Amino acid sequence: MANKKKQIVLGIADTTFSRVDMFKFVQDEVKNFEKKFFSIGMSVANSNSMKKSGLPVRIVRYTVPGIKDLPVACKILLDKRKCGIAIALGMVGGAEIDERCAHEANIGIQFAQLMSNKHIIGVFVHWNEAKNEADFYSICENRTRKHTQNALLLASGQSLSKFAGMGKRQGREDEGRISK
Amino acid sequence: MANKKKQIVLGIADTTFSRVDMFKFVQDEVKNFEKKFFSIGMSVANSNSMKKSGLPVRIVRYTVPGIKDLPVACKILLDKRKCGIAIALGMVGGAEIDERCAHEANIGIQFAQLMSNKHIIGVFVHWNEAKNEADFYSICENRTRKHTQNALLLASGQSLSKFAGMGKRQGREDEGRISK
Amino acid sequence: MANKKKQIVLGIADTTFSRVDMFKFVQDEVKNFEKKFFSIGMSVANSNSMKKSGLPVRIVRYTVPGIKDLPVACKILLDKRKCGIAIALGMVGGAEIDERCAHEANIGIQFAQLMSNKHIIGVFVHWNEAKNEADFYSICENRTRKHTQNALLLASGQSLSKFAGMGKRQGREDEGRISK
Amino acid sequence: MANKKKQIVLGIADTTFSRVDMFKFVQDEVKNFEKKFFSIGMSVANSNSMKKSGLPVRIVRYTVPGIKDLPVACKILLDKRKCGIAIALGMVGGAEIDERCAHEANIGIQFAQLMSNKHIIGVFVHWNEAKNEADFYSICENRTRKHTQNALLLASGQSLSKFAGMGKRQGREDEGRISK
Amino acid sequence: MANKKKQIVLGIADTTFSRVDMFKFVQDEVKNFEKKFFSIGMSVANSNSMKKSGLPVRIVRYTVPGIKDLPVACKILLDKRKCGIAIALGMVGGAEIDERCAHEANIGIQFAQLMSNKHIIGVFVHWNEAKNEADFYSICENRTRKHTQNALLLASGQSLSKFAGMGKRQGREDEGRISK
Repeated sequence: MANKKKQIVLGIADTTFSRVDMFKFVQDEVKNFEKKFFSIGMSVANSNSMKKSGLPVRIVRYTVPGIKDLPVACKILLDKRKCGIAIALGMVGGAEIDERCAHEANIGIQFAQLMSNKHIIGVFVHWNEAKNEADFYSICENRTRKHTQNALLLASGQSLSKFAGMGKRQGREDEGRISK
Repeated sequence: MANKKKQIVLGIADTTFSRVDMFKFVQDEVKNFEKKFFSIGMSVANSNSMKKSGLPVRIVRYTVPGIKDLPVACKILLDKRKCGIAIALGMVGGAEIDERCAHEANIGIQFAQLMSNKHIIGVFVHWNEAKNEADFYSICENRTRKHTQNALLLASGQSLSKFAGMGKRQGREDEGRISK
Repeated sequence: MANKKKQIVLGIADTTFSRVDMFKFVQDEVKNFEKKFFSIGMSVANSNSMKKSGLPVRIVRYTVPGIKDLPVACKILLDKRKCGIAIALGMVGGAEIDERCAHEANIGIQFAQLMSNKHIIGVFVHWNEAKNEADFYSICENRTRKHTQNALLLASGQSLSKFAGMGKRQGREDEGRISK
Repeated sequence: MANKKKQIVLGIADTTFSRVDMFKFVQDEVKNFEKKFFSIGMSVANSNSMKKSGLPVRIVRYTVPGIKDLPVACKILLDKRKCGIAIALGMVGGAEIDERCAHEANIGIQFAQLMSNKHIIGVFVHWNEAKNEADFYSICENRTRKHTQNALLLASGQSLSKFAGMGKRQGREDEGRISK
Repeated sequence: MANKKKQIVLGIADTTFSRVDMFKFVQDEVKNFEKKFFSIGMSVANSNSMKKSGLPVRIVRYTVPGIKDLPVACKILLDKRKCGIAIALGMVGGAEIDERCAHEANIGIQFAQLMSNKHIIGVFVHWNEAKNEADFYSICENRTRKHTQNALLLASGQSLSKFAGMGKRQGREDEGRISK
């Protein structure tokens, strides 16, 4: 169960490179989380209002140009902006060079986490995994929503162990558990 | 021989992405280890009960979404949860992007170990190394069991040198030693 | 809005390897930035004159042989030369080995940022992405100008969030936002 | 010439995965080194006896499951077991995944060295570089022996500069120097 | 202009693996540098004599087995041997595994620089970039000479900015600047 005493400070880093505004899905899931766990009906669409009203989740947003700028942005959120967890929202372009950029960004995210001893949930959507623009949008929404839920559970101290080994997927359908 | 005076604190990080519950094999091997080395017949299936009863092995479990979240989870187990060793349990999906994720996670695990000066035994099972779901399950079980044994030996201060150069394998049959 | 009280110290690392003088585009964009945000009409073409005159942006330039020398050059600018942000200007040659060098430099830039908790905006132009010398020159100019603008916005504390998810590109035309 | 006043503490990390006992070649070369440089005829085949007798070289052995466990094992030897240098003995299997493991282990070995400011001499033998089991055994022996000699020279403060640019090889024949 | 008050301490790490003695080109360029900038006619061919005579450049040489041993050797030169800059001289063999070793060494060199905040100029010559042994020797000489000049300029505090964007190359002919 969520720790009611301590506000969750959720860092969100996103990019101007992405062709989808993934941040709005985060906001929506935070609103759902707050409704579900705290039965609060008031609007939490704006992070400034949340901060002022002392709601259980405070979002700190940091926008950077591209995915290679996300690791240090997340580390600044964790180290200097008091975030307990961060989400890195990024789109990976369709060229080979874009995939290499994603690899470099992912290495950076690994180190940023180890240096801060906090989680950075990577939500990268690759252009090449989508059939078309609509499909790309849909993967962005699904993956961002599910990983925002994961981040909020981790940040609120709730165990994910009841979902371990269940074949959970973000961006597509769950694959389910294989039993003997 | 195992150090009877000091409790082994074994960190286990696993994922919701995995399609097999690999944690249960860890629990079973810990039970076997305790029976063999301490002749204790009582049930140790539950980590909470172990903690309370002061058994020689205490398991601390930490479940995260996917394999890229495992390195920092293990580092938190080693740095903040008093674990002497950690095991990272993960499934690697069948797409090329999954193999790259595994590479990034493995780099992260390398650094997490070097920063904490403790072992993280990686138990990654790749979808592509299995013939079918049953084979995948079987590799998961075999590799998790054998590496749990390795982790318990290392954590209890027992030397693995008597097995050095023996062609030991986890997830499949041992290959054996080549002599001149 | 830009913080008028604090001078922006902008570190620029460039190379002798590059076939285009990318630094002059930085200088020009700094001049534009100063005109736009501070309505200063005087010439700021020379970084020395800027330093002396106490203008809002001070450029510290550091030239190194090639792209693999850029990460530590940027880190020295950030750690020892009081820069709040750095830009790494580099050309990537057309051979396979050049692409690997770029990968190694990019990994270095990731770590340099995480160690200093400051941004290094990478402006790498790959020979292979251009059709000919004129096109290469044009990409260099476009990418350097746009990323200098990004760096100045980040350094002056202005949020890029109004451009998030807009499909911004540097070196070519923006791709625009995908809406549901 | 070797420093006679200070005992060399040589850390050896090896694996249960390897199909050849590479450690015995280290022991033999240490014996040769001691004979050659100190004219000691007594048996030094056993590291425990060496430790007790105060011989010029003390071996500290640490066996781990596989090559990805070697970097932190070496770092522990260097940081906590007073070793001045370490040798990482490992076999790389014949599958593509094994080569990636070797790459990850090598990255880890790089960092372990930089964090401790001491050398870790990597002795990895790849299954794919051998024609058959006998050839594999032979490469293991040759490479381990020659690199043990290198490690002992480095650890004893003797310069390798007289061999610089000579085309030395470990595991196969030297290639020799190219002169103008 | 060179700082006449402070001696340049130039660290040179080279290997026994290389088939060319690249160090002698460094020595020759140091001699040229001293002649040109300080008008000193005496022989500086030997690093020991330079050290004793208090000449403006002191060379500290450190020979290791192969390129993967260079990063920590350079870091030791920078951290413990008072070098202000280091040059890593290495030959990369012609097999695929050699290219991977070079990649690992280059990653290590990146980190060594960032940890010490000093430059390590990498002078790696790949067997595969040469047509034959004579060509390999020639690339070794050209690249080592030019990068020694770069290192001496950087170490003496002289700006390379007058050469920025000039398409400078080491090991082959300069490519020159592209202007609009």
